[in-house]
Amino acid sequence: MVKDIVIGMSDGLTVPFALAAGLTGAISQTDIIITAGLAEIAAGSIAMGLGGYLAGKTEVEHYDAELKREYYEVDVFPEKEKQEVRDVFEEYGLSKSSTEAIVEELSKDKDKWVEFMMRFELGLEKPDINQARKSALSIGISYIVGGIIPLLSYFFADTAQQGLFYSCIVTGLCLFVFGYFKSKVIGQPPLYGAIRITIIGALAAGTAFFVARLIG
Amino acid sequence: MVKDIVIGMSDGLTVPFALAAGLTGAISQTDIIITAGLAEIAAGSIAMGLGGYLAGKTEVEHYDAELKREYYEVDVFPEKEKQEVRDVFEEYGLSKSSTEAIVEELSKDKDKWVEFMMRFELGLEKPDINQARKSALSIGISYIVGGIIPLLSYFFADTAQQGLFYSCIVTGLCLFVFGYFKSKVIGQPPLYGAIRITIIGALAAGTAFFVARLIG
Repeated sequence: MVKDIVIGMSDGLTVPFALAAGLTGAISQTDIIITAGLAEIAAGSIAMGLGGYLAGKTEVEHYDAELKREYYEVDVFPEKEKQEVRDVFEEYGLSKSSTEAIVEELSKDKDKWVEFMMRFELGLEKPDINQARKSALSIGISYIVGGIIPLLSYFFADTAQQGLFYSCIVTGLCLFVFGYFKSKVIGQPPLYGAIRITIIGALAAGTAFFVARLIG
Repeated sequence: MVKDIVIGMSDGLTVPFALAAGLTGAISQTDIIITAGLAEIAAGSIAMGLGGYLAGKTEVEHYDAELKREYYEVDVFPEKEKQEVRDVFEEYGLSKSSTEAIVEELSKDKDKWVEFMMRFELGLEKPDINQARKSALSIGISYIVGGIIPLLSYFFADTAQQGLFYSCIVTGLCLFVFGYFKSKVIGQPPLYGAIRITIIGALAAGTAFFVARLIG
């Protein structure tokens, strides 16, 4: 949940901010900048939210397909599957006799055996579709919230330049505070994370500004 | 590599397309639509590419921190770590004697033991920073390539409406073909994947259009 909000917010703060900043380099009508920003928020939140949900669904389908395949292989090629268990443990220097004991015991319970292969051979954890749904919603909403912040300054500013000026301050501050807590939550050095995410935002906005100025 | 190109392309095809479509709902100057689209491509490719690279770096740092912690725990609390090995195998219904044999053998080689804990207790695979760098570059470049496609029609169109019309056809086709091969590569039913990704693009563009028309 925290991870999803972090993903949505950081992209929402970055891309609409950079787009608005970029447009300020080319045009002076704040209403067009705000319209473009809101259109980007609509597009981005759907692409990220719905895209994330469907990616989650794909993951569930992939897991189920692999699970079916493992059950099939355990049934039809049990010797090959036993060899795969041996391969997993040989990597860790286990003796032949211990490995054989594990293979014998695992192969007695088909469900446990397949569960073992899914996790240790294929490295797949059972995905949760409800989780994917909640995750998509969190990412989409966080993107909208994050994206509105950089646009607010343009609502209240007299000129686009003024809007950009306040937007840089407000968004820069938000990125910094947000990067700080994000890093804290995931157990990283917080100051380092704060600087990192602020630099991404600044680089994206700066590049968009110069691209727009060159063309517009 | 294929996965990164798929991620970059599908977002690049979707978001700049939806933004341009959205703006067409509010303004008629194709040059502003193109400028906004290119600014979004600049912002999005940096946010995704650089963001992805730094996320990869964070993952490497996280892995290294956990590795250090496991070495420390194996040194200072070997009994606790042995119990954790037992816990992993008890889940799969292994007998006490086999589990003890594994624990004894694993604990003889500290490196193998830690490697085992990293993978089977924590589920962490050693990340590769060169991989993260390549991955970021692939995503960024694919986003640019994907994003240029929906804008091309606006370059050659007389009116924004005409640009939107051709952009919908070209992008819709690209999303479909792209979704088809994407699903094929990851072993999903290709037609289903093609329809899915095209619907995301259409929904994002439609929403952006109505948001922009409401406000603009």
